[in-house]
Amino acid sequence: MMDTPLLLTSMMERAEKYFPRKEVISRTASGIHRFTYKEIGERTRRLASALTKIGLKKGDKIGTFAWNHHRHLEAYFAVPCSGAVLHMVNIRLTQEHLTYVINHAEDKILLIDPDLVPIIEKIKDQLTTVQCFVIMSDEKEIPETTLHPAFSYEQLIDDGDPAFNFISDMDERTPAAMCYTSATTGNPKGVVYTHRGIVLHSLAIGLADTLGLCERDVAMPVVPMFHVNAWGLPFAAVWYGTKQVLPGPSFTPKILAELIEQEKVTITGGVPTIWIGLLKELEENQYDISSIRALVCGGAASPKGLIRAFEEKYKVPFISGYGMTETSPIVSLSTLTSEMDSLSLEEKIVIRSKTGLVVPGLDIRVVNENGDVPCDGATMGELIVRGPWIANEYYKDERTNDAFKDGWLYTGDIAVMDADGYVRITDRTKDLIKSGGEWISSVALENALMSHEAVYEAAVIAIPHPKWQERPLACVVLKDAYRNQIFEQDLILFLKGQFSNWWLPDEIIFLKEIPKTSVGKFLKRTLRDQWKHYYSNAE
Amino acid sequence: MMDTPLLLTSMMERAEKYFPRKEVISRTASGIHRFTYKEIGERTRRLASALTKIGLKKGDKIGTFAWNHHRHLEAYFAVPCSGAVLHMVNIRLTQEHLTYVINHAEDKILLIDPDLVPIIEKIKDQLTTVQCFVIMSDEKEIPETTLHPAFSYEQLIDDGDPAFNFISDMDERTPAAMCYTSATTGNPKGVVYTHRGIVLHSLAIGLADTLGLCERDVAMPVVPMFHVNAWGLPFAAVWYGTKQVLPGPSFTPKILAELIEQEKVTITGGVPTIWIGLLKELEENQYDISSIRALVCGGAASPKGLIRAFEEKYKVPFISGYGMTETSPIVSLSTLTSEMDSLSLEEKIVIRSKTGLVVPGLDIRVVNENGDVPCDGATMGELIVRGPWIANEYYKDERTNDAFKDGWLYTGDIAVMDADGYVRITDRTKDLIKSGGEWISSVALENALMSHEAVYEAAVIAIPHPKWQERPLACVVLKDAYRNQIFEQDLILFLKGQFSNWWLPDEIIFLKEIPKTSVGKFLKRTLRDQWKHYYSNAE
Repeated sequence: MMDTPLLLTSMMERAEKYFPRKEVISRTASGIHRFTYKEIGERTRRLASALTKIGLKKGDKIGTFAWNHHRHLEAYFAVPCSGAVLHMVNIRLTQEHLTYVINHAEDKILLIDPDLVPIIEKIKDQLTTVQCFVIMSDEKEIPETTLHPAFSYEQLIDDGDPAFNFISDMDERTPAAMCYTSATTGNPKGVVYTHRGIVLHSLAIGLADTLGLCERDVAMPVVPMFHVNAWGLPFAAVWYGTKQVLPGPSFTPKILAELIEQEKVTITGGVPTIWIGLLKELEENQYDISSIRALVCGGAASPKGLIRAFEEKYKVPFISGYGMTETSPIVSLSTLTSEMDSLSLEEKIVIRSKTGLVVPGLDIRVVNENGDVPCDGATMGELIVRGPWIANEYYKDERTNDAFKDGWLYTGDIAVMDADGYVRITDRTKDLIKSGGEWISSVALENALMSHEAVYEAAVIAIPHPKWQERPLACVVLKDAYRNQIFEQDLILFLKGQFSNWWLPDEIIFLKEIPKTSVGKFLKRTLRDQWKHYYSNAE
Repeated sequence: MMDTPLLLTSMMERAEKYFPRKEVISRTASGIHRFTYKEIGERTRRLASALTKIGLKKGDKIGTFAWNHHRHLEAYFAVPCSGAVLHMVNIRLTQEHLTYVINHAEDKILLIDPDLVPIIEKIKDQLTTVQCFVIMSDEKEIPETTLHPAFSYEQLIDDGDPAFNFISDMDERTPAAMCYTSATTGNPKGVVYTHRGIVLHSLAIGLADTLGLCERDVAMPVVPMFHVNAWGLPFAAVWYGTKQVLPGPSFTPKILAELIEQEKVTITGGVPTIWIGLLKELEENQYDISSIRALVCGGAASPKGLIRAFEEKYKVPFISGYGMTETSPIVSLSTLTSEMDSLSLEEKIVIRSKTGLVVPGLDIRVVNENGDVPCDGATMGELIVRGPWIANEYYKDERTNDAFKDGWLYTGDIAVMDADGYVRITDRTKDLIKSGGEWISSVALENALMSHEAVYEAAVIAIPHPKWQERPLACVVLKDAYRNQIFEQDLILFLKGQFSNWWLPDEIIFLKEIPKTSVGKFLKRTLRDQWKHYYSNAE
């Protein structure tokens, strides 16, 4: 067979050649913009040419600090197709972590959204490798800034060569992109994605058996483009000529609902908090979201109540997914097999709430100290993953050895596998509650609480206990209508039917909101810190 | 990223692990057999183990001489997953070519269907490398044969180890399989498929945008398993846990129609002659074929009348495909893009009759001596192809240099490309008719003739002419009902409205049937030989 490398260049070339009229809808500060793939392709080549002129060389790291929009998409291809590496910097990192990742990756050029410039201005004096900044404004004029030298993105596009040739003779194992995990402790860890990995991941999510992303779709990645390649959706969408809707900065549930209705979005992806917010908006105002054929939810467990609402009330198929920064990210999806067609809606919702079946191309196992655990849906073990779009190391990081062993990635997620091979994540290893030598699943308790009609959000944490080692404590946010209507004993009673007594939280604390990480996951560390003295003699 | 190789082993392992209850329906001499993937997996491991015991070593070529059935499927995986190479010998080759390909490939073991044993017995004394024969009978007793030593397939299965470990640490570029082209002149040319090529091809045909082969499908490859991997369907179907229906030896249109109805086949593939036969059967007897969501047709151009009948009368989507032994084989498919939804049925049929849009992962171009021809749907050039499942050579064959140049496969097919990038094959380079310095497309004339209600089959050939160099001659088979009702002048009149006068065939000759190649394509060489003295002074 020919040794043709698997490269991102062929993905953009396919969109330019065969889908020149298909559109990318991009929301920025100045409104909605519509570009065809012919235009996106030309602008991508102009950008690649311009970046080369201002210093981009093969192997360089080029950072982006931006929302989901067409310019970010252009950078997604312009940088790797020039032989350089796109570093998507998470805009929600702390100043300390921002400085760390930009310096650690050795970013040479930073492409920054105008509204995010002030964040970079604050850390500019600590940046040791950045040689210049590009401001991604809608106009050629850029806002006044202390960043120097600073170029206008649109001016660069103007000056660039629309016929610039991508580099197409690279090895497919050439690095194309990188992201850092949003670590809750220590410095973020870098993961490098190769052209080969991204191409294979894109094939995997185009399979009819997985997301089936295709030309007929209208894809709206709500998951940020600075967060694990927006789950790979923008790459694959370009390849397949899929119309894309990029919701831009500071979107609200209302904006998302409007975009879905107006652009007839068929597939969208985001974390549970996004869909909880969208659901609230749908319940308050009237929208037609019937175009959606797949609402993909990942990053945290999907509450069954959320799934039920979308599946039952809005007839929107709800697909839970599992992945990490280390896995490109799609590992498994809660799609239903033909054998499950005859199940009841309630049984299907149980399956939809799992992290699902591993996608073709990867291997997964659930293991404990004795090897693979039985596929009984009950025995817990750590989920480990292997495959061509799974990282094999953290970038220049000694912590590589903690997670990568014997050719497998140890995810740190505790899971059970059922007889059909469907995986359910029960906990992060560090979120498990060890009470009296036994494990209590904080996620199981959270899901149960969140299935109560009065509960908006719930986080269950482990607090140190003098006798039992750890005990569960529940932090709950009630829906507005239920404030001061529902009390601790109501929820404890609600849980009692579902769990052994020793699993029940020692207290239910009502909060106004649950603190969240930069990507919308519950920040349990903050809660744990706050309540660690609950049993003061446990210190 | 991890350097996990793309191997066939993971495809069978996925079926065993996640789809143990899904079925392979296999028709053999003794009737219909049903095996689950659990059983197929176990039998495949037993076969791999048994073949290893009787001499299979890494890199060995193991030949199959068999119809489409479960044993052939087991060999499809047992041989490559043991590090050896499966050579699918075309059962319809001449004795001379059979001997050539088996010796040229250096097959060490031959797996033979019981009804095909006599063919191999006739050439056994010319086979220089075969060390033993395995007879794929339904019973452990094998028919009396002069082949020696001859093993019983089912006895080997009995003796094999059901827990045999596949070799999973191979380089992904390890050869997995090989086929020879059914050449019309000279010896057949061998093409070697690697694990990498087959895995990528399987991903490509699982994409929602291509065939979308998936777990929910019931796939019936009518295209023989000895013909370019049965278009890759058996490999991908195992990976995705797709139920398979393998129609076995000497099937008839009636058998196919019954299998479609009984097993609720959703996707099937074969050459036009198969579907012409099926259509005749459907018109004569009552069947429910509404389960079919994709009837894939390749190997030769699909007549528009055939497409219209399936699309209009039976509501069966008809997808033309293009590929060759050298291309694994899927290169392009006549799937419709979202922009084509608003077209009329007649316009869609025109697109369905093209060989379509190149699948993601490959590059194609249509070139003449000046480079790429314009995408105007009219300018003809040679179709050239590049990609990771395209051969880069003929196996140990000097003719490699004729077809493989500058990293591209020169297909020898003359094509036009339209503005949407859809390709239509107009002719084989050698089937073009050069009349007075201009090209006449024999395929265009054939398609026009076959769209006449009275015409069953039509082949147009070039015959030598003293003045014009070549002139077209049409060989036509009329449908039974039209015999002696339709005459030459009727068909010439029918063509006149559609072509310039100088394109019209010099004569229309009515035949009882068109001679065909081993895979059902028109054998124009025979016709050309027969009529080469038509203008005797042209000799």
